[in-house]
Amino acid sequence: MYDLKFRIIKKDKFSAARLGEMETPHGKISTPVFMPVGTQATVKAMTPEELIELGTEIILSNTYHLYLRPGPEIIREAGGLHAFMHWERPILTDSGGFQVFSLASLREVDDRGVTFRSHIDGSLHFLDPEKVMAIQEDLGSDIAMVFDECVGYPASREEVEKGVERTARWAERCLKAHRRKDQAVFGIVQGGIFPDLRIRSAKHTVSLGFSGYAIGGLSVGEPKGMMYQMIETVIPYLPEEKPRYLMGVGTPEDLIEGVKRGVDMFDCVMPTRMARNGTVYTTYGRLVVRNASYARDFTPLDPHCQCYTCRYYTRAYIRHLLKAGEILGLRLTTIHNLHFILNLMANIRKALADGYLEEFAREFYAQCYSNKL
Amino acid sequence: MYDLKFRIIKKDKFSAARLGEMETPHGKISTPVFMPVGTQATVKAMTPEELIELGTEIILSNTYHLYLRPGPEIIREAGGLHAFMHWERPILTDSGGFQVFSLASLREVDDRGVTFRSHIDGSLHFLDPEKVMAIQEDLGSDIAMVFDECVGYPASREEVEKGVERTARWAERCLKAHRRKDQAVFGIVQGGIFPDLRIRSAKHTVSLGFSGYAIGGLSVGEPKGMMYQMIETVIPYLPEEKPRYLMGVGTPEDLIEGVKRGVDMFDCVMPTRMARNGTVYTTYGRLVVRNASYARDFTPLDPHCQCYTCRYYTRAYIRHLLKAGEILGLRLTTIHNLHFILNLMANIRKALADGYLEEFAREFYAQCYSNKL
Repeated sequence: MYDLKFRIIKKDKFSAARLGEMETPHGKISTPVFMPVGTQATVKAMTPEELIELGTEIILSNTYHLYLRPGPEIIREAGGLHAFMHWERPILTDSGGFQVFSLASLREVDDRGVTFRSHIDGSLHFLDPEKVMAIQEDLGSDIAMVFDECVGYPASREEVEKGVERTARWAERCLKAHRRKDQAVFGIVQGGIFPDLRIRSAKHTVSLGFSGYAIGGLSVGEPKGMMYQMIETVIPYLPEEKPRYLMGVGTPEDLIEGVKRGVDMFDCVMPTRMARNGTVYTTYGRLVVRNASYARDFTPLDPHCQCYTCRYYTRAYIRHLLKAGEILGLRLTTIHNLHFILNLMANIRKALADGYLEEFAREFYAQCYSNKL
Repeated sequence: MYDLKFRIIKKDKFSAARLGEMETPHGKISTPVFMPVGTQATVKAMTPEELIELGTEIILSNTYHLYLRPGPEIIREAGGLHAFMHWERPILTDSGGFQVFSLASLREVDDRGVTFRSHIDGSLHFLDPEKVMAIQEDLGSDIAMVFDECVGYPASREEVEKGVERTARWAERCLKAHRRKDQAVFGIVQGGIFPDLRIRSAKHTVSLGFSGYAIGGLSVGEPKGMMYQMIETVIPYLPEEKPRYLMGVGTPEDLIEGVKRGVDMFDCVMPTRMARNGTVYTTYGRLVVRNASYARDFTPLDPHCQCYTCRYYTRAYIRHLLKAGEILGLRLTTIHNLHFILNLMANIRKALADGYLEEFAREFYAQCYSNKL
C-alpha cells in the first residue's frame, strides 16, 4: 500500500473544516477537493486537457463499469488507466460496491462475495474483495477503495448491521489481498442512518489502518439533515491526520456543508449529468436552459461566470443545441457545471486559507436562496 | 450582392486544377478548399476553436435545418449565424433545395415553390426562392446559394429537364430578391447525368452573373465515372475567374479528382458522419475502429497522423469509447477525420503551388490502394 502523505495546512476556527494537501503517485492534490466522475474511463463529453483547464486535480473512475467494459486486462495491457485514457493526474477508483447493489441486477450476496448480472448484457459475474482489489491493481489508480456492501435507504437496522459487519470482514480481506506499493487504499464507513452502527463501523475501519477513510451509503435518499448528522457522527472517530472522503456527494450546498463538517474529498455525477439534461448551476440558482423561455435569451448561462461557455455562448444558442441533440450542447453545459463546482471548491479553499469560510458560505447561500441548488 | 474577389494564384500545367484565394466579408479562403458541414449551426461534436486548430477556413451550414430550428428570426436577433454560433470565419449556407427534396416529406412542387412537411415534427411549410433568400439574409452567411430543384438519381430526361428549367427560373427570382450587400450569391448548375442539359443549365446560370458557380445534383447515387464526366462537361462553361463549387462531395478520391477537373470548393458530411459511426480515414485506407480486432490495439488510428487524437489516444481506447457510447469517442474520431480531409486539401494546395499535383495524387492512391477510400 502506498504511504499517501496528507498534510493539514490550516484548520478553520469556526468549523471542522481544514485546508490540506495530499501527495499521490501522480502528484499533489489540494483539499477540500471535488473529483469529477469518469465512469467509463472518460469524464463524459470532456478531454483531459479541458479538465485540466478547469482546474481538475483528481478524477474518479468506476471499477464496476471498467471491469465489465473494456475489462481490466485491456487496461492493464494499455499500461493502466492513466495511459489508457491519457490522464496523467491522480485517479481514485471506487470498488464497485455501490454499483453492484444499485446498477446490476443482483443475484446473490453472501460472505464470499456478490453474484450479479451485468447491466450491459445480462451476463453473470462474481466479485469478491480479492477480485475487486486485483481489478483496481490492474487499473493502477492512485487510490483504491475497499469492496463494501451498500445497504440502500430505507433499510432496517438488522439489514444495515449485517452490511456493516460484512463490510468490516471484507475490508480486512481487501487489505490482506492488496499488493501494489504505488496505490493507496481507503476504507469505507457504512452504517446507514444509525449513529451507533456508524460509530462501530468507523472504529473498526480505522483500527485496520488505511491511507484515508470514506463515508459511504449517504445521499441515497435519506433527508439532508440526516446526512449531515451522520457526517457529524462519524468524523470524530476518523483520524485527524488522514483524508476523509464523502462518497457520491454532491450539490453545492452539500459540498459546503461537508467541508464545514471536516470532509476533504467529494465526488458526484450530478454536475455532469444535470448538464447533459440541460440544467446548469448559476450564481442565482439552477437554470433549466432547455426551457422555451430561453429561446431568445442572448445572455450567457451565468453573467458572473468566466468559463469558456459563458465567455462565448448564449442561452439561446445552448438551448438550440440541446433541443437539436447536438453534442456541442452537452459539452458546453458540462464545461459550465464542472467550472461552477470546481470554482466553488477553489473559492472554499481560498476562504479557508484566508479564514472567512463562514462569511463565504453565508454569502453563497444568500445569493442563490431563491432557487434550490 | 457582395463582390466576392477571387484570385487565381497558379494554374496546374497537367490538369484543370488551380490554386486560388477568395475574399469574403469574414476573411480570406485559400482554394481548393473543403468546407466542414455545420448543419444545425455547429459542426457536430466540435468547437469553433477546434475547427480553427484543424485549419478550417470556411464552414457550410444548412438553411433548411436552421429555418426549421431554431428559426431564422432567432438567428437574426442573435446578430446572425456567426455571432449565434461563435464562428468568426466565413460561412456558406446552402439553399435548402437538396434537403427539401431529400429529407422532408414533400407535398407539392410547382413553379411557385415547395410545400413540405418538416422531418422534425411533421409541420407544414412553404419555401420559395424569395423566402429562401430572405432566410439566408437573416442568417448573414458570407455566401448564399440559390434555391434549386434537385431531381434525384435515377431520373428520366424529362424530369431532369423540368428541374433544369425550374432551377433557371428560380435562380432569376433569387437574384432579383436578394438585398444584402455583404453577402455573395452562387448559382447552381443542375442537369443530372445529361451532358446537354448540364451545358444548358451552366450557360443560363452563368448568363445571370453570380459571384460563383456550383455544380449540384451529383454524388446522389450515380457511378463515379459519370460524376467525373459531368464535372468535365460543365467546367468549360463556367467562367475561369469565378470560384467553382462541387456540392456534397466528397471522399478523398473525389476531392483529388474534383480539383484536377478545376473545382475550387467542396463540402461533405461524410468525414464527420463516418467518424461518428466509427470509421476513420488513414494513410492506408479506411479503418473501422469499432471492430473487435482493435480491442487490444494500442497504436494510434493512423501512425503517420499528427492530429490530437493520434498524438494521445489508441485504437483500443477509442473503440472502448465508441462501444460504451461515450461522447469523447465521437469527438476523437471527428477530429481525426476532419484533420485527414483538411490536411489532404492543404497538401493538394502545396502540391499545386509547387507543381507536383500529379505525383501527389499518384502517391496518395498508391498508399491506400488496398482499401477503398
